[in-house]
Amino acid sequence: MTRLQREAVDALHRNAPAPPNPTLAEQRAGFAQALSRPLPGDVAAHETVLASRPALDLTPATATGRGRLLHFHGGGYVLGSPGTHAGVTAQLARRARLRATSLDYRLAPEHPFPAAVDDGLAAYRALLDGGVRPEELVLAGDSAGGGLVVATLVAARDAGLPQPAGAVVFSPWADLTLGGQSMRTKKDADPIFTRQAIQAFATPYLAGQDAAQPLASPVFADLRGLPPLLVQAGSNELLLDDAVRLAGRAAADEVAVTLRVWPQVPHVFQNHFGHLDEADEALDEAARFLSARVQAGYGAQADRCLDPEDPEEPSAGRP
Amino acid sequence: MTRLQREAVDALHRNAPAPPNPTLAEQRAGFAQALSRPLPGDVAAHETVLASRPALDLTPATATGRGRLLHFHGGGYVLGSPGTHAGVTAQLARRARLRATSLDYRLAPEHPFPAAVDDGLAAYRALLDGGVRPEELVLAGDSAGGGLVVATLVAARDAGLPQPAGAVVFSPWADLTLGGQSMRTKKDADPIFTRQAIQAFATPYLAGQDAAQPLASPVFADLRGLPPLLVQAGSNELLLDDAVRLAGRAAADEVAVTLRVWPQVPHVFQNHFGHLDEADEALDEAARFLSARVQAGYGAQADRCLDPEDPEEPSAGRP
Repeated sequence: MTRLQREAVDALHRNAPAPPNPTLAEQRAGFAQALSRPLPGDVAAHETVLASRPALDLTPATATGRGRLLHFHGGGYVLGSPGTHAGVTAQLARRARLRATSLDYRLAPEHPFPAAVDDGLAAYRALLDGGVRPEELVLAGDSAGGGLVVATLVAARDAGLPQPAGAVVFSPWADLTLGGQSMRTKKDADPIFTRQAIQAFATPYLAGQDAAQPLASPVFADLRGLPPLLVQAGSNELLLDDAVRLAGRAAADEVAVTLRVWPQVPHVFQNHFGHLDEADEALDEAARFLSARVQAGYGAQADRCLDPEDPEEPSAGRP
Repeated sequence: MTRLQREAVDALHRNAPAPPNPTLAEQRAGFAQALSRPLPGDVAAHETVLASRPALDLTPATATGRGRLLHFHGGGYVLGSPGTHAGVTAQLARRARLRATSLDYRLAPEHPFPAAVDDGLAAYRALLDGGVRPEELVLAGDSAGGGLVVATLVAARDAGLPQPAGAVVFSPWADLTLGGQSMRTKKDADPIFTRQAIQAFATPYLAGQDAAQPLASPVFADLRGLPPLLVQAGSNELLLDDAVRLAGRAAADEVAVTLRVWPQVPHVFQNHFGHLDEADEALDEAARFLSARVQAGYGAQADRCLDPEDPEEPSAGRP
């Protein structure tokens, strides 16, 4: 929690090299270089396939054998991959003691909306079909991947699939209309984004489609029936209000929701684990939340096995 | 977290006796009867005076000797007293292992705004003057008492006083303009309030003064400089958006803030401890938060003693 740490992170972002008019390939390479952090030594990575998409399995030595984390990386639906986020995903997985599978969902501009949501839903369905119980499955994602987590949960509900045990989103991009007040009020505080930069992600992803539709902008979705949700954000982000409004929408829709905002840290500050105390604190909190949700899922299963006449509704044990 | 518990609490509120056109004395007596819960056996209560106002000291056997909780009861600035809330305040105090002092601030209509805020600030100042260090002082309050906690912190900042280590508010009433969307959307879900009932508290408290002024409605206040804040609410309340917007305002103003909303439970559901799992979970979370804030305050003091050249800003150790 030191000011010096926060200032160093802020300066790192503000001084990041930004070549003028980069090609898409240059943008993706630059993003990978900026984001990539080494895998911790106690997490084994191997490439796999999930619902016909490439994916990265991250198995921590700490994993207890049950429970699974489905992870969606950030990058504005245009950049990034499971590889760019493997370091931070592995940190979350090892702290939660959960095996993680990070999905290489299709990106824009090659594959605009709803390709990413289709891939997210297909991956979720494939895990269930493969024998992972919803009570032991949790989701996590950052930025666009956080929006995609919520969109996937909504799509899964609408497809009649059971909900998972819980979900965590870091600095979710949840309003592709760019309608949050923080788009203006955090203009100077955000060391990473301008409004134009965010619009430059929305435009190819939407490809002319309605930005306000619920699966593109889950701040406008009906979130009833979703599992417990943890939303984390930093105060130094244009997207702060995406997090606040997503939490508000979830609360209104009777979702058990926790919003936590750390002051004076930027978008997806969790990536700065090891250098920024807030990042480690946030990852630890997210891991505790995911681990507790999986444990509660086990409890609910055990209860049902013991007492098939239990008067609880089907979602009992995971409010 | 059982549906049966939630339904019982909902029915309890919906079936509460409500005499037609009660006098103020009848309202206050009914509120006391509805709210009062027995003191736990391990908490000693004694009446005291704080800044010329009556107050109730609640000392749990678990208290470690350092740390103090200043508590403001709810009741729409018209009803209630430290006595009506002694049971739930004692529960919070014993779980947090903190001695609590609950203030009998002046009520409307006898004493309209800003009497309550004046009393809150005077009590806060008196504790500091009496030797309680701000790093070991925390605040808590419910409903109007939650709004009063935030107003007191703003008033203390504006008076040049140091901020305490943290604060918890349960279902804060923080917008006396009644401007939240949930005032409409939760009309049927709220088993306690109607808009008219809430207005009937605002009118005598404001006594014609501006409802939107920051110390009456802290959702409109500048919250910069406030300490870490935990906001808890239930989804079945007209005042849900007071909690959501207070947290959003705090986040935008660089306050370390956590918002947690439990689904399908009413306004200040924490009062149902022992009968409703969510109530005990919320009290435990609030107690952990307060206790951790006081511990962090000790840490910051110790750090400063060890290293007077520490480069941290004065608020370091408690963001």
